[in-house]
Amino acid sequence: MASNGTNGTNGASHRFDPNFTQAVIDNMGPKTTPRNRQVLGALIRHLHDFTREVELTIDEWMAAVHFVNAVGRIYSESKQTRNEAHRICDILGLESLVDEIAHKVIAEGEIDPTSSSILGPFWSPNAPFRELGGSIMQDGVPPNGQVTKMHGVIRDITTGKPIPNAVFDIWQASANGKYDFQDPENQTPNNLRGKFRADENGRYWFYCLHPTAYSLPKDGPSWDLLTLMDRHPMRPAHIHIMVTHPEFQGCTTQLYPNTDPWLTTDTVFAVKPDLVVDFKPLKGDDKATLELEYNVNLAPKGYKGKL
Amino acid sequence: MASNGTNGTNGASHRFDPNFTQAVIDNMGPKTTPRNRQVLGALIRHLHDFTREVELTIDEWMAAVHFVNAVGRIYSESKQTRNEAHRICDILGLESLVDEIAHKVIAEGEIDPTSSSILGPFWSPNAPFRELGGSIMQDGVPPNGQVTKMHGVIRDITTGKPIPNAVFDIWQASANGKYDFQDPENQTPNNLRGKFRADENGRYWFYCLHPTAYSLPKDGPSWDLLTLMDRHPMRPAHIHIMVTHPEFQGCTTQLYPNTDPWLTTDTVFAVKPDLVVDFKPLKGDDKATLELEYNVNLAPKGYKGKL
Repeated sequence: MASNGTNGTNGASHRFDPNFTQAVIDNMGPKTTPRNRQVLGALIRHLHDFTREVELTIDEWMAAVHFVNAVGRIYSESKQTRNEAHRICDILGLESLVDEIAHKVIAEGEIDPTSSSILGPFWSPNAPFRELGGSIMQDGVPPNGQVTKMHGVIRDITTGKPIPNAVFDIWQASANGKYDFQDPENQTPNNLRGKFRADENGRYWFYCLHPTAYSLPKDGPSWDLLTLMDRHPMRPAHIHIMVTHPEFQGCTTQLYPNTDPWLTTDTVFAVKPDLVVDFKPLKGDDKATLELEYNVNLAPKGYKGKL
Repeated sequence: MASNGTNGTNGASHRFDPNFTQAVIDNMGPKTTPRNRQVLGALIRHLHDFTREVELTIDEWMAAVHFVNAVGRIYSESKQTRNEAHRICDILGLESLVDEIAHKVIAEGEIDPTSSSILGPFWSPNAPFRELGGSIMQDGVPPNGQVTKMHGVIRDITTGKPIPNAVFDIWQASANGKYDFQDPENQTPNNLRGKFRADENGRYWFYCLHPTAYSLPKDGPSWDLLTLMDRHPMRPAHIHIMVTHPEFQGCTTQLYPNTDPWLTTDTVFAVKPDLVVDFKPLKGDDKATLELEYNVNLAPKGYKGKL
């Protein structure tokens, strides 16, 4: 009896059974939902194509199995506080890609909506509202902190008009590169977090820190993967923002100082051109030495733009 | 400023940034080994192509992140005895594909080597050598067990001659569908396992059970995935064998009764035509009611065959 498979008479560029992958896909039953059939079918096809293309060895496959188990093990052993599966996706560019797919809007008019960027694991639903002109430095200015007055206008891309009462939610790491969650010895909950409601002219303003670049953890599966790829673990300095209004499509994104050395090699690939900003020296304000003006453009709900 | 990305001027069949994936791949540093660059580069490309092709949503991606964490959590919480990452690979056909890639040999002569099949998680390095003609039913015949006299000849595909002293290692689940590891209340270690050394004519013979179909676990991430795909969890009945000799390429495979109802929908896709066998009624042997003749064909070490 002939051994399994043929030499690929269907023109496939490999020497393996040309019917195998379709047989696996076709094993899905009739009650599979159309979307699950599409997503899982494509997943199986790409997984098999990848495996044949590189002729993945048994040892390499077993290493991948151990890797996946290790990812979940850290999640379990950290009591669900360290989400390495999320971080691995970020390192492979997957979260940024999913974010692009979800939020891609090409404006029909002259004003593009502000680009989205990844949420990351450090947003909190519990950030307090603060007064316009207030400070998110709840615990004071940390050593090496550079206080920045941040301000701008939130506008409607279809009219260019300001959006009164839009909510501007900001969160950032402290000057030591750590968020409040990660740094309970030095920071109280909600330090360097806050929500601000724009005034009747769509304006917001408050005090925050010039952000600080930081490293992903240098242990665990994500660090192992970075090491295999000879990559650094650095994220460029950034400020997270989430701008919302009931009548507009919200924008979750990150802003990056244009002087940061990691902009072009961000380890999670979340930098986009319109998110790179210019911090300028500020005179005449005894609370801050830097100024950042950033205007945010939102599309109305239901706006599709050009596809 | 224009939003990130273009509409795909390079002919890509999607509307997303055409440079993103290559930028992620190109972030690998100069010390990445050539093989890692090849494997991880292809992995990133296929992962991104899959994601764009199905326009994976943020909720679907987050479900996948939770799924990966759950896979590893079971491994951790079961104290490394339940390897769901391995099982997920099996359900997606990946272990069978990797096995095909590793062992694909097309013979130059008339005799093909016996097809390989997946090792699975139940092989043990500790199975004892037993005498030719002995039994692997160390704990006796279980309820509903059908005793089979299994025998055959191990041959060299290049000469057709027998291979004296080849080692025939067999393991199988009991009539309740469980291996010794899984069933300590009913089975002693190494029950239904044994190694036999072929005689001077390459012959082996011993007593075992007609195998029993069994289900993968009906809980945990692998069961969740099967449910999404509306698939059954059944493996066809099978006997595992691993045939080795120092001068030959070993063969690890599985044999399936031709009467089994799950042959064409094996949930791990490990059935190949030359591994489907005929159990025949046996007369005149008071130890067994069935007979299975199976001859194994091995290629010499270094034999490449036709590629």
